[in-house]
Formats: sequence, C-alpha cells, structure tokens
Amino acid sequence: MSNPTAPADAAQLKDIVAHAKEYGFVFQSSEIYDGLAAVYDYGPNGVELKNNLKRLWWEAMTQLHDNVVGLDAAIFMDPRTWEASGHVAGFNDPLIDNLDSKKRYRADVLLEEKAAEYEKAGDPARGAALTAEMGRLLTANDLAGVRQLIINEDILCPVSGTGKWTEVRQFNLMFSTQGSAVDSDAPPVYLRPETAQGIFVNFLNVQKSARQKIPFGIAQIGKAFRNEIVARQFIFRMREFEQMEMQFFVRPGTEGAWYDTWKAARRRFHEAVGLSPAKLRFHDHDKLAHYAKAAVDIEYEFPFGFKEIEGIHSRGDFDLTQHQTLSRKKQQYFDADIDPGTGKAYGNYIPFVVETSVGADRLFLATLCEAFAEETITEGEGEAQQTKTRTFLKLHPALAPIKAAIFPLVRKDGMPEKAQQIFDDLRFDFRVTVEEKDAIGKRYTRQDLIGTPFCIVVDGQTLEDDTVTVRDRDTRAQTRMPISALRAYIAEAVSFRRIFEKL
Amino acid sequence: MSNPTAPADAAQLKDIVAHAKEYGFVFQSSEIYDGLAAVYDYGPNGVELKNNLKRLWWEAMTQLHDNVVGLDAAIFMDPRTWEASGHVAGFNDPLIDNLDSKKRYRADVLLEEKAAEYEKAGDPARGAALTAEMGRLLTANDLAGVRQLIINEDILCPVSGTGKWTEVRQFNLMFSTQGSAVDSDAPPVYLRPETAQGIFVNFLNVQKSARQKIPFGIAQIGKAFRNEIVARQFIFRMREFEQMEMQFFVRPGTEGAWYDTWKAARRRFHEAVGLSPAKLRFHDHDKLAHYAKAAVDIEYEFPFGFKEIEGIHSRGDFDLTQHQTLSRKKQQYFDADIDPGTGKAYGNYIPFVVETSVGADRLFLATLCEAFAEETITEGEGEAQQTKTRTFLKLHPALAPIKAAIFPLVRKDGMPEKAQQIFDDLRFDFRVTVEEKDAIGKRYTRQDLIGTPFCIVVDGQTLEDDTVTVRDRDTRAQTRMPISALRAYIAEAVSFRRIFEKL
Repeated sequence: MSNPTAPADAAQLKDIVAHAKEYGFVFQSSEIYDGLAAVYDYGPNGVELKNNLKRLWWEAMTQLHDNVVGLDAAIFMDPRTWEASGHVAGFNDPLIDNLDSKKRYRADVLLEEKAAEYEKAGDPARGAALTAEMGRLLTANDLAGVRQLIINEDILCPVSGTGKWTEVRQFNLMFSTQGSAVDSDAPPVYLRPETAQGIFVNFLNVQKSARQKIPFGIAQIGKAFRNEIVARQFIFRMREFEQMEMQFFVRPGTEGAWYDTWKAARRRFHEAVGLSPAKLRFHDHDKLAHYAKAAVDIEYEFPFGFKEIEGIHSRGDFDLTQHQTLSRKKQQYFDADIDPGTGKAYGNYIPFVVETSVGADRLFLATLCEAFAEETITEGEGEAQQTKTRTFLKLHPALAPIKAAIFPLVRKDGMPEKAQQIFDDLRFDFRVTVEEKDAIGKRYTRQDLIGTPFCIVVDGQTLEDDTVTVRDRDTRAQTRMPISALRAYIAEAVSFRRIFEKL
Repeated sequence: MSNPTAPADAAQLKDIVAHAKEYGFVFQSSEIYDGLAAVYDYGPNGVELKNNLKRLWWEAMTQLHDNVVGLDAAIFMDPRTWEASGHVAGFNDPLIDNLDSKKRYRADVLLEEKAAEYEKAGDPARGAALTAEMGRLLTANDLAGVRQLIINEDILCPVSGTGKWTEVRQFNLMFSTQGSAVDSDAPPVYLRPETAQGIFVNFLNVQKSARQKIPFGIAQIGKAFRNEIVARQFIFRMREFEQMEMQFFVRPGTEGAWYDTWKAARRRFHEAVGLSPAKLRFHDHDKLAHYAKAAVDIEYEFPFGFKEIEGIHSRGDFDLTQHQTLSRKKQQYFDADIDPGTGKAYGNYIPFVVETSVGADRLFLATLCEAFAEETITEGEGEAQQTKTRTFLKLHPALAPIKAAIFPLVRKDGMPEKAQQIFDDLRFDFRVTVEEKDAIGKRYTRQDLIGTPFCIVVDGQTLEDDTVTVRDRDTRAQTRMPISALRAYIAEAVSFRRIFEKL
C-alpha cells in the first residue's frame, strides 16, 4: 500500500539540504573551518549523480549528433577575451554600502525588495512604477540617480537601521588573479565567468581539425566563477559553478529555425532525465542582453519557485565578430553550398550562433528535488500492522549513484562469501556495493535514501539454487531470479539508451 | 608488410605537438590572441581521450573497490586550509631578477644549469659540489647565500649578459583571488595548488555519510593551479592542470604494507592502459617532503626523458593533524576492531594516509607519445608497388576518441543512407562517425591519425546481404561481418572490462 505525497514544496528545501549533507550528496565547502560562503563540495553520492548527469548531457550532445563535437578549454584565458566579450566593461552589479553597518548591498536588490513591499501592501502600481524607474536609471548608468531613489524611498539598512549610504559603484563580477610569475607588469588573468568564450576563441581550430561543416556545434563542460554578492538558495547560485554549454554555428538567416529546434530538443532532454513536465516551463526574456536576438529560459519549479536551469540564446555573430575585431584574426567560414537564390556558393561569412547553456549544479538540484519522495506505507498484518513514512530518492536508475546493493541475509553459512562473489562480478560493469550489517529492512531503508534502484538479497535458497531476490526501490516488490540473469537485468534498467531513445 | 619503428624518441616531441594541434587533440590556449603561456585547451579528440582516461581511473578506483568512494570538492577553499597544509609558508620558489634585462629567473634553476655545465665540461665533481652547496643554502633558507653563490659562480643573465642581480626572494606558487564581494577586508582566496586538501578537510563527512570503515579511500579528479616560473614541455608542466588523487586512510602501523600494495597496483594500471613496461620505472625520492614518510614516483620515458606521471606518498597523519590543530575540530576515527595485542578495540586515532596522485595531463601526454606510431608499408603489386610511411595512433580501443568510422564506398546507390542507418543504431552505444568524402584510402588515413580502431565500409555487397567490411587500424586487415554483429564486436574491443581484468 503506498500513497506518494505531492513532490517537494517550499518547506522541503531545508529537508533536501539536510538530506544532501547526511547522505553524502553535498557538503558545505571547508566545513571544518566554518564554511566558505556560496561554495559547496559534492560528496560520494553527489559526485556520482553529478557525473552521471554530465556524462548523459555530453553523450546526448556529442555522441548522438555526428555534427556536435567536444572541447575542454582552460579556465585561464587571454584577458583580451573578456574585453571582446564585453565582460570587462559591462559585467557589473551596482553596489552600495551603509556607512554605519559597513554592510554592502546590491542597489537594484534593495529597490526590488521595496517594490515587492508595495505589492504586498496592496499597491502593485507603485511597485511597478518603482521597478520601471530603477530600470530606466540603470540602463542610463545613472548611478547617482539610483542612490537618490534609494534615499527618496527611505530605504534603510536592515542591520544598522539607518539611511546613511555611500555612492553607488559598479562592481565587476569577474574574479581575477596574477597574470604571470615572471612579469609583474602582466595584466591580471580572470577566472572565466562563462565557458562560452572558450568555445568562440577556438571556433576555427575546432571546425578545421574536426572537419565540420556548418551547421555544427561545439559542446563543453567546465567550471566558471562569479563574485556574486547575493549568493543563496543552496547550490542554485554559487561563486564557483559548472556549466554545460553547446554553441551551434549556423548560416545567417537559419538561426530562427535552429533556435526553435534546440529549444524543443532541450526541453525533451529535461523530461527524459525525469523532471516532471508540469514543473518545467519556458520563460521568454523580456529584455535581451546586448548580444542576443532571442532568448528563452527553461525553468524548473524548485521548492523556492520557478527558476532558470538552462538558457537558449540566439547570439547572432556578436562574439565571433568581437573576437575578429580585437584579435585581427579572421573568424570566417567558407560555405561551399549553393545558394539557390544566386546559383553561387554562399561563400565566406561569420556564422551565427545558437547557444544552449545548462547550469550543471542547477540540473543536479532540480533532479534531487524531483527525486525526493515521501510516502506513507503500511507494514505487517493484524495487530502487528503499522503505518510509517518512507523517504526515498526516485532517481532515474541511469542516474542513481549506486546501481545495486548486495545483502547477505545473515553473516554466516557462506552468504557473505556469495554476496562478495556477486559483487566481484558486477563491479566490472556497474557501481555496486555489499552491505552486511543490520536487519534487512534497515538496509533497504539506507539504500532508498540514496536512490539505489535494486537491492539483491542472498538467502538460504541462494546457496541451493543460485537464485537471489531483487527488490525494486519504487514498488518495493521482490522478484526471484538466477544470479546469472542479474547483469542483463540491471544493464537494461540503467542504460542511457532508454533515455536517448526519448530525445 | 609492416615494420613498426621504435617508439617516439626525443626528436618526436615536436611532431607530437604538431600532430596534437592538427588533429584536434591539444590547442594553445587563446591562440587567436597569440596564446597564454603554459595553458592549453583540449580539442574534440583530446577531450574524448582525456575523458576516457579520467573515467577509466575513476571507475578503477571507485567502482572496482567497495572501500574507495569519490568526492568533488570546490577549487575555492577556506584560506586556513593552506596555512594548515604548509603551502602559505612553504610553497615557494626562490626568484631573482636581473637589473638590466628586468628578466626573472628561478635561482635554483640558474645554479642547476651551471652545475650541468660543469658536468658537460668534464668536471662532474665540481657540478655535484655546486648542487650540494645550493641544497644546503636553500634548506637553511639562506637567500643571501644563494645570491652570493650565483655571483661567485659568475652566472650571467642570458638576455642582458650582465651579472647585476637583485636579492633572492621567495615567491609563493599559489594563485590568489578576491575573498569576497561583500567584505573588502576578507582575506584572499587561493586557487588550490593540489586537490588533496579537499579530501582531507572532508575526511569525516565522507567517512560518516558513506559509512566507510578503515582502511578506505577517497578519490577525486579536479583542477589545480600553480604559478610556475618554468612552465615548459608542452602540457607536461602547466599553470592550470588536472590531478587524479586517491587518499587511502589506514590504521597507523599498516601504512608500509598499504604503500607497497598501492605502489604495485598503480604500476599495473599504467601498464593496463597501454604504457610499455620498459618505459615505466619507479623513482624513490632521495629527499622527502616535510609531510612524507616514504615517497616514490612512477616515471614514464617521454621524448624528453624519464619524468613523473604519478606520485605515491606515505603522508602519515600530517595533514589531518594539522587541520585538527587549526580548525579545533577532532579528526579522529573510532576503530572498533580488536587489537590482538591488547584484546581491546583499537579505539580513537587519527588515521595515516597513503596517497596516489596522477597528473591527468601527464598521463594523457604519455598515452599520446606511446600511441604515436610510424611504420613503413608496401602497397600495390608489380610496377604499381610503392613504399610509404604510415602514421597512426595505436591507442587502446577503450581510450580511442572515436570507436568506429562508417564509410559508404561511393556516394550513391543507397550506400550513404545505409551508412547513416548503421550510425543511427551504433551512436546509442559508442562514439561513431560517418565519412563520405574522398577515396577510401584517404579516409582510412584520416582515421588512423586520430586512432580510430575500426573502419566500417558499406559497399555493393552490403546492399545485397547486409554485411560490411571492418578494417582494423593496427593490422589493416579487413573482416566481413553482418551489420547485426557490429555492436557486439565493437563492445568487446572497447570495453573497460578488458583493462579492469588486468588490474
């Protein structure tokens, strides 16, 4: 008898964070030193889940498509990269300090919070007007105006309670470090704030060495860094995070069709991974970034609301043109295909780009929230019958950190040795584990909590006929099967192929 | 007729670097901006080869051993981590500047080069004496003495030709960046110079959440950064690089046996991956680092000589003790096993650590050097007979970036469509590609150059009986088989299982 409750709601984020720590998914970074703000470490089960998600995305991109190839560019890049991309000049947050508390805030966040207050107090028009005025001032880079607005709105520091504010300054979000050990005059090197530029500066090297013709894509997974002033919501917004990006290079004029194609394909991916269709939605950008012709987010309904997990952007030729200008190296592609309009080859051009950019940590968090399940179950019969709550992670078996746990029913009669034999064979193909301690029920519970899809029990009958029971995580049903059938049974369930076929 | 030549010799490094660039394995970072020194990007084939090596190591560690689990700690850590580890105080290079050229050098390298000159000139005793004197001064941190030695030896700047030198200063190799956007007084955060400390600070979190008992290991793959003044030999020594480390926690007193066990196991790994036993050797450290009780390198014979690809170190309880002292958080483990000597449980102690640390980029380079093969082959018969040199990458099939290339013999008669059907099926399981352009021989050559183990040709007969030829990269032999047999044939060859069984 099972009665799954509704998926995670707002109150559950705390439970999920606690679960993630206790069961080895995510730890606060440097916890023994009281933690480094907005930085997290992935534990034994977390790293496996994250690696599975990354490998799934990577193979879905580069293995399923003959015209998408991979790249792994370094975090360090020539600093001119970030001049060309616009990050040096424009990747800023407007910050303001309170003179009494010495606390620093994002000016736009202070004003947005004030606007939200008006709305809550029943005056949404006033809230909307404030937001609009703030937008106008920021667009005009009128920082004195932004400060005056904060003062006019009588916004006080939540710590000191005073309204004594410094000027508003633009604060660049890029981290920087030493440019060179040899030359102290060398400009600082930035920690890349996005992985995309590593793809753009390598565009021609990749296209030529991989002999790709347009349209084709370059996929990359890697770390990026942003000195966020407002870092919160667990691993949703971190100072060090991981992106999975694929930049697709197309003939100008075809970008609209490719944008639609990838938008649909990327949503299918998230559904195939196991995210509920009802918890996914598209959110078109109202205001486009300077490089964008069209932009949409795929949002997932986290316990703290619908938030972006992936962005799809039609970037035009902005990036390649910028790099061509600054580097003075041609970034053109020769298209030998015949233009039916002119009867001649399309010839040389700078390709347009359609970008798909997933936050790997956000996809991880969405997957964890989606999988976190609680149900009320009834166990036993007659007077011994009791009702209890079962917590388990309903992860897709292809994503589960451990595929199967092997339990000798008791620690004697040769059962532990038999369990070890099964482990020694299965470990060549899957991540499996042996657990000998505690009652079987307790061992089931432990595997449920980390999302292990199968528990294999070695019992008295096993010693006679080489069969075991396999208990299913989701249904709790037990099936008896020969040991020799285990590999094929698990392989079928955990294969990426079952996901790929849905893409 | 084939006649493989001897493996890569010294002159071949240049060829390998050029090959790596042309065929999409390794590009100079930010090449369009003329390159960032000692930083490299992995291209489409390089990232696949590197991912395969990383996954092989990861699974060999965490999947084959029930008592080794993974971790993925962030690059950013609390700065006190590096005080505890000794890096803030001691991770230095002694640098000296020439006043005329403004060039900066490592003082120890200038002296070592001078010692090598004496040796070359037939006076090895004088060279050895100089090296010993330098070692004595550096150990005593007598930097004025080091400078005086440079002057006494009449060492001149190779650029300015003068002997006008600044003082010798200790230069820390750690990169640092902003500690916080909110608090400008926050101490800088370092980019970790090694991944090991991420494991040590998480020791108890991992041990408890993964329910591990000693002895057990924690494995991690990740980036590390060192501001090297002498960065050279291609990807052998980079400022940004990747480590694959496994720290094994043991009961004090057992570390010697575990050190021997892992030393042997790690050498087996490198041989199983395909490195020649004759090109691998152990090199015991003469001088031990402050934390080490025993240390050995596994060296590979690169074109530029035998160099370290992995280090195995018996670190004792140095790191955990240091972190316990600085963080004031107990780093003890309770060992419930019974000590036969006392009849009581071993009880609480700080475990000893045996470390295995591979340079992922170095293993990649070793694999590439090992695979780079040239052979003289004879083609054709009678008067058309000709001799030519064939270059190919003899990568283990499990490591090859692309497992199979599918060639329609001609671009008509339905052969391209048939090739596409084979691709559409195989892509769910392997990285495969279709190539239609150019003569078959040229297509074979291209796949040889990137190490593709199998080329599948769709020809006239295929259309009649659904069979194809499969050409082997190493033997160039062709075998005819049904399309339906391809998957199993490739799977057998590229499976990690074949490597795991040798470990």
